[in-house]
Amino acid sequence: MPYQLYYWPQIQGRGEFVRLAFEEAGADYDDVARGKDGMRALERFLADRAQRHPSFAPPFLEVGRQVIGQTANILLFLGPRLRLAPRAEADQLWAHQIQLTLADLVEEVHGTHHPIASSLYYDDQKPAAKRAAKAFVEERMPKYLGWLERVLARNRARGNWLVGARLGTVDLSLFQVVEGLRYAFPKAMARLERRHPRVVALRDGVAARPNVAAYLASERRIPFNEHGIFRHYPELEA
Amino acid sequence: MPYQLYYWPQIQGRGEFVRLAFEEAGADYDDVARGKDGMRALERFLADRAQRHPSFAPPFLEVGRQVIGQTANILLFLGPRLRLAPRAEADQLWAHQIQLTLADLVEEVHGTHHPIASSLYYDDQKPAAKRAAKAFVEERMPKYLGWLERVLARNRARGNWLVGARLGTVDLSLFQVVEGLRYAFPKAMARLERRHPRVVALRDGVAARPNVAAYLASERRIPFNEHGIFRHYPELEA
Repeated sequence: MPYQLYYWPQIQGRGEFVRLAFEEAGADYDDVARGKDGMRALERFLADRAQRHPSFAPPFLEVGRQVIGQTANILLFLGPRLRLAPRAEADQLWAHQIQLTLADLVEEVHGTHHPIASSLYYDDQKPAAKRAAKAFVEERMPKYLGWLERVLARNRARGNWLVGARLGTVDLSLFQVVEGLRYAFPKAMARLERRHPRVVALRDGVAARPNVAAYLASERRIPFNEHGIFRHYPELEA
Repeated sequence: MPYQLYYWPQIQGRGEFVRLAFEEAGADYDDVARGKDGMRALERFLADRAQRHPSFAPPFLEVGRQVIGQTANILLFLGPRLRLAPRAEADQLWAHQIQLTLADLVEEVHGTHHPIASSLYYDDQKPAAKRAAKAFVEERMPKYLGWLERVLARNRARGNWLVGARLGTVDLSLFQVVEGLRYAFPKAMARLERRHPRVVALRDGVAARPNVAAYLASERRIPFNEHGIFRHYPELEA
């Protein structure tokens, strides 16, 4: 297959943003670590001393002899190839800017359950996590969603996509973020969605795409769980 | 001037990565918020409801009618224009991947003094900060520096730069990261530098560039302080 994606097989995580792009495009890709001996292949890759472009962490993508890491960078590469990117350079940069802001949001979501260190158990940083989640839900979630709503409102093209008149990788990523926030913070999202109709409409628009819908209904879509970035700990929303 | 940079005037912060690129290139740029009525201009820009591409946060760059936000995205745009980027697309992606990994590192450094929320004072999250800084210094700093050392070792081109044989924006950014880590965690860096000679040599190579040296000696270079990303709180290194 032309595209080999390397990512943890048990979670959606950051790899999901790449999976969604492949699925929407109907592209031939191999989710390597989910195949037979896949985790060994991923670990071999990370340990390979001959690898000239070592990635700091998954996800990374192998395409022929090229290896590309960092989620937003992978999507920057894939966008034009999967016809999921705007044509003009200025629009590509704008889409990438939104993608990087979504990456910041995702990092902050991770910080709600692991504010002190990724290497510590959640249970060993729970009091800090409660404070972090409170600040995220009260201040940051409204700020990010408000910004995304404004971005959609100011795009004068038809279709309710983030950039121009066609769906792109960044729209698929916003879909994933909305799904994740609904899973992790259902009460806060129920409140906030009323004030962000364009964000919700984009989420619905993506969910209705035939390839995305088929993917979400398939076994390829790993369910949300408490090992990924978006985790549902009810005590963090109290 | 062709380039208007909008960033907080009191700190190096994320804007510094962009300033260093302009300074090395000897480019004509306006550090808007540091000029007369500059903060008002920055705030006006952020509040502008007619702005079609609103940035979530500074830094952002105005070039003619284009506005570009997100530090790594700004550098992606500037690289070829300032002759601080590799020519081949594959090398540009690799440089951008390293840049995004440095952005992750910078975000983690910020988390050492603000693990719970950016909106809270440092004093209100000090116990969590101590634990976060310990994990960062013991686990993450060595991991990031080790990765950067490997990247340099595996670049077969001459010159000890991260990508290819010429200095680029990503090298200037690594210089800034080393300076910041030395400021924030001097004891840990003194220990770690011995094991990462290529990273230190790159830092020295950047510091010796005439334009960079002139900048660092000028009043344009804002000193490190306890309002930025890299902060020196001795208790975080205990």
